[in-house]
Amino acid sequence: MTTAMHSSPAVPEAAPVPGDTTASRAAHAGEPLVTRYDAVRTHTLRLCATLQTEDFVVSSMPDVSPTKWHLAHTSWFFETFVLAEHAPDYRSPDPRYAFLFNSYYVQAGERHCRAQRGLVTRPTVAEVFAYRAHVDEAMHRLLERVGADAAHPVVPLVELGLQHEQQHQELLQTDIKHVFWTNPLRPSYHSGPRSRHGAPEPVRWRAVPEGVHRIGNEEKEEFSFDNERPAHRVFLESFALADRLVTNGEYLAFIEDGAYDEPALWLSAGLATVQAEGWTAPMYWERTADGWTEFTMHGQNAVDTAAPVSHVSYYEADAFARWAGSRLPTEPEWEVAARMHGTSLHQAYDQCWQWTQSAYVAYPGYTPPSGAIGEYNGKWMADQWVLRGGSRATPPGHARLTYRNFFPSATRWQFTGIRLAEHT
Amino acid sequence: MTTAMHSSPAVPEAAPVPGDTTASRAAHAGEPLVTRYDAVRTHTLRLCATLQTEDFVVSSMPDVSPTKWHLAHTSWFFETFVLAEHAPDYRSPDPRYAFLFNSYYVQAGERHCRAQRGLVTRPTVAEVFAYRAHVDEAMHRLLERVGADAAHPVVPLVELGLQHEQQHQELLQTDIKHVFWTNPLRPSYHSGPRSRHGAPEPVRWRAVPEGVHRIGNEEKEEFSFDNERPAHRVFLESFALADRLVTNGEYLAFIEDGAYDEPALWLSAGLATVQAEGWTAPMYWERTADGWTEFTMHGQNAVDTAAPVSHVSYYEADAFARWAGSRLPTEPEWEVAARMHGTSLHQAYDQCWQWTQSAYVAYPGYTPPSGAIGEYNGKWMADQWVLRGGSRATPPGHARLTYRNFFPSATRWQFTGIRLAEHT
Amino acid sequence: MTTAMHSSPAVPEAAPVPGDTTASRAAHAGEPLVTRYDAVRTHTLRLCATLQTEDFVVSSMPDVSPTKWHLAHTSWFFETFVLAEHAPDYRSPDPRYAFLFNSYYVQAGERHCRAQRGLVTRPTVAEVFAYRAHVDEAMHRLLERVGADAAHPVVPLVELGLQHEQQHQELLQTDIKHVFWTNPLRPSYHSGPRSRHGAPEPVRWRAVPEGVHRIGNEEKEEFSFDNERPAHRVFLESFALADRLVTNGEYLAFIEDGAYDEPALWLSAGLATVQAEGWTAPMYWERTADGWTEFTMHGQNAVDTAAPVSHVSYYEADAFARWAGSRLPTEPEWEVAARMHGTSLHQAYDQCWQWTQSAYVAYPGYTPPSGAIGEYNGKWMADQWVLRGGSRATPPGHARLTYRNFFPSATRWQFTGIRLAEHT
Amino acid sequence: MTTAMHSSPAVPEAAPVPGDTTASRAAHAGEPLVTRYDAVRTHTLRLCATLQTEDFVVSSMPDVSPTKWHLAHTSWFFETFVLAEHAPDYRSPDPRYAFLFNSYYVQAGERHCRAQRGLVTRPTVAEVFAYRAHVDEAMHRLLERVGADAAHPVVPLVELGLQHEQQHQELLQTDIKHVFWTNPLRPSYHSGPRSRHGAPEPVRWRAVPEGVHRIGNEEKEEFSFDNERPAHRVFLESFALADRLVTNGEYLAFIEDGAYDEPALWLSAGLATVQAEGWTAPMYWERTADGWTEFTMHGQNAVDTAAPVSHVSYYEADAFARWAGSRLPTEPEWEVAARMHGTSLHQAYDQCWQWTQSAYVAYPGYTPPSGAIGEYNGKWMADQWVLRGGSRATPPGHARLTYRNFFPSATRWQFTGIRLAEHT
Repeated sequence: MTTAMHSSPAVPEAAPVPGDTTASRAAHAGEPLVTRYDAVRTHTLRLCATLQTEDFVVSSMPDVSPTKWHLAHTSWFFETFVLAEHAPDYRSPDPRYAFLFNSYYVQAGERHCRAQRGLVTRPTVAEVFAYRAHVDEAMHRLLERVGADAAHPVVPLVELGLQHEQQHQELLQTDIKHVFWTNPLRPSYHSGPRSRHGAPEPVRWRAVPEGVHRIGNEEKEEFSFDNERPAHRVFLESFALADRLVTNGEYLAFIEDGAYDEPALWLSAGLATVQAEGWTAPMYWERTADGWTEFTMHGQNAVDTAAPVSHVSYYEADAFARWAGSRLPTEPEWEVAARMHGTSLHQAYDQCWQWTQSAYVAYPGYTPPSGAIGEYNGKWMADQWVLRGGSRATPPGHARLTYRNFFPSATRWQFTGIRLAEHT
Repeated sequence: MTTAMHSSPAVPEAAPVPGDTTASRAAHAGEPLVTRYDAVRTHTLRLCATLQTEDFVVSSMPDVSPTKWHLAHTSWFFETFVLAEHAPDYRSPDPRYAFLFNSYYVQAGERHCRAQRGLVTRPTVAEVFAYRAHVDEAMHRLLERVGADAAHPVVPLVELGLQHEQQHQELLQTDIKHVFWTNPLRPSYHSGPRSRHGAPEPVRWRAVPEGVHRIGNEEKEEFSFDNERPAHRVFLESFALADRLVTNGEYLAFIEDGAYDEPALWLSAGLATVQAEGWTAPMYWERTADGWTEFTMHGQNAVDTAAPVSHVSYYEADAFARWAGSRLPTEPEWEVAARMHGTSLHQAYDQCWQWTQSAYVAYPGYTPPSGAIGEYNGKWMADQWVLRGGSRATPPGHARLTYRNFFPSATRWQFTGIRLAEHT
Repeated sequence: MTTAMHSSPAVPEAAPVPGDTTASRAAHAGEPLVTRYDAVRTHTLRLCATLQTEDFVVSSMPDVSPTKWHLAHTSWFFETFVLAEHAPDYRSPDPRYAFLFNSYYVQAGERHCRAQRGLVTRPTVAEVFAYRAHVDEAMHRLLERVGADAAHPVVPLVELGLQHEQQHQELLQTDIKHVFWTNPLRPSYHSGPRSRHGAPEPVRWRAVPEGVHRIGNEEKEEFSFDNERPAHRVFLESFALADRLVTNGEYLAFIEDGAYDEPALWLSAGLATVQAEGWTAPMYWERTADGWTEFTMHGQNAVDTAAPVSHVSYYEADAFARWAGSRLPTEPEWEVAARMHGTSLHQAYDQCWQWTQSAYVAYPGYTPPSGAIGEYNGKWMADQWVLRGGSRATPPGHARLTYRNFFPSATRWQFTGIRLAEHT
Repeated sequence: MTTAMHSSPAVPEAAPVPGDTTASRAAHAGEPLVTRYDAVRTHTLRLCATLQTEDFVVSSMPDVSPTKWHLAHTSWFFETFVLAEHAPDYRSPDPRYAFLFNSYYVQAGERHCRAQRGLVTRPTVAEVFAYRAHVDEAMHRLLERVGADAAHPVVPLVELGLQHEQQHQELLQTDIKHVFWTNPLRPSYHSGPRSRHGAPEPVRWRAVPEGVHRIGNEEKEEFSFDNERPAHRVFLESFALADRLVTNGEYLAFIEDGAYDEPALWLSAGLATVQAEGWTAPMYWERTADGWTEFTMHGQNAVDTAAPVSHVSYYEADAFARWAGSRLPTEPEWEVAARMHGTSLHQAYDQCWQWTQSAYVAYPGYTPPSGAIGEYNGKWMADQWVLRGGSRATPPGHARLTYRNFFPSATRWQFTGIRLAEHT
């Protein structure tokens, strides 16, 4: 629901962000904004390369948006927050798109009911691609005018639009995965076989001593979301963080121990959800005559026991931790340990988002920007947990040490996993 | 859910069925079965001519099936009930289609959840067309073997499959109309302007004297559904039937008289539905600054006051009749009057299905066929009303004097209208 | 929701109504209205004799009203439809009762939400008894004035109020049974042991020849509801009606034959209901280690296989009939056979209401009375089936040959049973 | 769901707890346990003094339990967690009560569905009082044996049972208030007129400097719940806390400023709730021709503008704070300020619980007790906010500086109010 960023000096050397190679980082630092714009926008299209026209249309559950909608909404974002003010000659191909493709910005006008996104067959996919091209053309003209003027007021808005688009790149993938899984034919997103993980090392616990630490974004970086700011101090009792994520194999032991039927392991709301939904394993798992399988972007496969467990809710992450005699980290613990231990903390950004037991609320001193953009993060600060890190669907250069992702307790269609913590 | 038939001598001359010209009737009488097969199957495709790929995919409410599903399901019907037994060499292009495209035939195997029909992007539209062609090819080979052998056991099954396909031709149109209406862009199914109705004549009441009458299908005809049989006797007190349908203009007077806010006019369940759903007019009507508009296959238009009112529920039809100091006819009344008065009863088959105040139950002596085909009609005989006649979406040659269509009280997305009756 | 009446010459000698002894009938014919008024009102109180204060308060499901409400509502009926107009000095003990105890008479003013009836602790039970006494006192004064004047306009209204109260006497019993059953402690309404039925005789089929018959109330009787009128003619094909109801033992064979898991036996809506509700037997049945038990007014007992099966829905009655190779009667069939065969038709009025396959709609020529009283029956004429006869909870003298009870398909908390019919 | 405690030295002199007079505190310190047991148990009965039998029975919404159930459940608690192990001769008056009156302790056996609590008329109120007496008698015998042995293992369990009973004393009041409000007759709990608040002083902001502070229960006290422990350190940036609660008058200004219709003020989930529920004011407020009224324990009254606003959800508290240019405190901020400023912080314990923007999660190092008692607090640690302080319904001696109450965002039927905080 939120996302991340390009490389930045604020991420300590010790904590490299996957996909954020030196090359791309260097390029980013000096590259013209239009180059970056094109790179991000093109990446979105690349993610659609294996889809058929029909795949773009449907929404398989209320949380899932059609691919077509992601493509249009990210373009609407530039139209509304950049072009409307800074490109006075800009004309929308259809003014009704503003109604159809606004997600939730109350101050940006009325919007189409979310529940009906998957019922709208027009504009067609081709028309949506044309809409993207139309916006890109206007953006090119605008960025040409801006040139190398880093202080131009349009620059932070464009950067926000690109960060926003990257967030939707992740959602596009989690959403289409769900759409494909809903289909009894179980089509694959990727055609080839998936690579399997090597046998996991035993967990090593990375200790952090008690004391006052500083978390949050220092704003020296090129980009951060408002919800990562201001940087501030927290006191942490001493603790240790697992240096890798919980694996499918470990989670399987939890299942086979009867955990889903053992009320003492669960939060009360968790148990109610497990029973109401009939959960017996992570989302996308299915028990067959030949054992457990999982639906992945490569179709239905045997569960890879060495891979990090994914698609688990907060309730399941919490119950697993309790079963393992451990607990989930808090948000500051995650950030402080990740900053301190850098690369010795594996699978931080490239596998699954990691549930923390911190509610998603404002940092001390937080103030959202004024206007519709202020709705970007602040209005979600209730009834959600913070997740930290990044996932295999997070686009290159988007993850960040101070990044705060957030979802409600029962969320499972995201790439959500478990990193354990312990008091020491 | 709906039905109909070709022309037949059982329909008295006095009651011509629109679209059933002498030419088509003659052709039908002597034509090879394969010719009829191709004509019906091709007509289905013709109904899709103005659709975009995206339009085939979605279901805009639980009652609505995707166009793609209609195309596949009607082919599955031939596959399951004709080819499976009579074409032993036949192979399905994908055995999982049997699961995806079974509608409700419990005895024909498991089936995909109706609510998920609109979430399935594969098979693609192109693959569904290929599926149809695959079935057609096998049917052609089979019908070639059958030749002119009218006594071949396959003949009644093929006829049933074609009648079934014609019913889905009507549903396809009502469904896509709803899909288009759900879209705020309000696309049109037909591109041209619609024709408008001429000013209606005052209603003339066609009287029927009291006495014992015979209704139901005499089975001399080429085709009828099991639910139209057996023919049997009923006693009717004297009554009269309106010679035309209630118009939009007349219904507008009902609206403007405050009828939707007048509890005394409504059945209790009707009032509850009106209030829960917020109904203030027929489905597809919208009040604008310029007056009432209605969404038609030609897009959003001013209400044509001369046209028969359509898309009203049983509750609304009943309330209108009460307001008008009249009532709805019973099913036997409709049939006896239609048989007796023939063409002097206008708009019987070509505008809107006509609600009757008869519940859809078995005729005395009714027995459904054995096996899965027996599920076609009999298992719906509860909680629905009979509608008589035919509509503008009923394919040529499908309407019939004894035809029994049926829907629940709150149904509005079909072409359903009102013909009044009176005691005399 | 249900009704009936005292004895009347219109019920042929052949069809005596249980509980309606010659004595009571004679008394009724000549008795002062006030005597009858007191008899009916007192009977209501007698039905509450075994209840504790707490039992009067709750509603265990939306269909069920608290006993307290029945007591108050029946008094409100006299207050509103008799005293308001004919006893100008009458003062309600609390004008807000008119809001609390109106059931559904829209034209009689606003009313309390049905769903909240069981949430209202005040007025207390004692206050409701006082309300009844208050109304009775005013009624006594009024009836004294009326005296023996049978033509006084108040007379038919009082009779309607008493018929109405008798209907609520039946509902009071079915409702409190459900309340007790909802309680895991399973309290009994009656303290003693229940009597058991003798072994049933084999069914004898009572034949009726084809022809035109007359049904409905001839209005020579002392009382009938508007929905029983006008009497009119129907044509019936020849048929036969079972001379007794289906027994628990016969229904058990249906269960043990796996009927609840056999889709081919069920209406489509019936199967959906069976699966959604998890039905495996009639309401109030429970399978224990010692076999099937049923909850009765005498508590939890072994199923009495000789007794008529009760608490079955229309769906179950219809499925049983199909399984038995038979069918349910229509409403005219029931009435014509009951009139023709009189006492040779057993268990007509004293065990369970009998589902017919006739929808509850108006008789030809029906017109409801004007004003709020017109809402009594007419506005329920959709989405319900007619039941005929009477039940063990129907008060003495209330059942009648032409009586039309009605409930929706899934109703089970009433005393509803099965009488089979056959085409001959 | 709520909690609290007796007086304790751990509450600094500066923060007196209302109702916790020196007298009662002294008594408590030296008093025999049986004296305290009787005092608490009797207080529960005293809370029922104005209720009629009917009032004890119903549940007016899923969150609300019948008074009868509170009386029985608190007795069951002693039966299950004290008598079962420590009074081997104890016999329940009815073993089925264990099923009926278990709230949520999975490890203590099966339990009655919460949604059905209000549907159970037996045991009667009299029987429930007898059940209490039965438990009290057994407890007396046990406590006699225990005598002055403060180290007896039964002592902490009895104390827990009393704390638990006090929590239900508060719930009993909030629940019966809701029951009375649901009744259109709007009965009063208290008979006399309510006292009105004096004009509020302007808010003074009580500052706390940045630094490491200690929060949580130090376990030197006589009693604390597991969720208040262990005490631990937190770092707080500097802030200030309002010295009194937001008043009805201040909240009225928020309403009159159109706040309920101003999306920019609301959390997204808050706005959705406001719109779905049609909220326009705090629960129990109603706008009449004479202005705003509120339903209190003294019936329907004009809103007392000087009183603290109560019955607001987290969403409303958060929106009010945003509107006021302020924010809600975090849990550590509340505790640190309350400890530091003591009595200069008004209305801390005696008016309304105060929403904090801290999610209810475990303190660092928290471990629940083993066995069913471990379910008391820990399993609720998701999807709820911490509330601090106490309310007018909190029994004397139950409030405490480190007490953590908790409810979900949309909760309104508790006495929940607003204390503002500011960054400095």
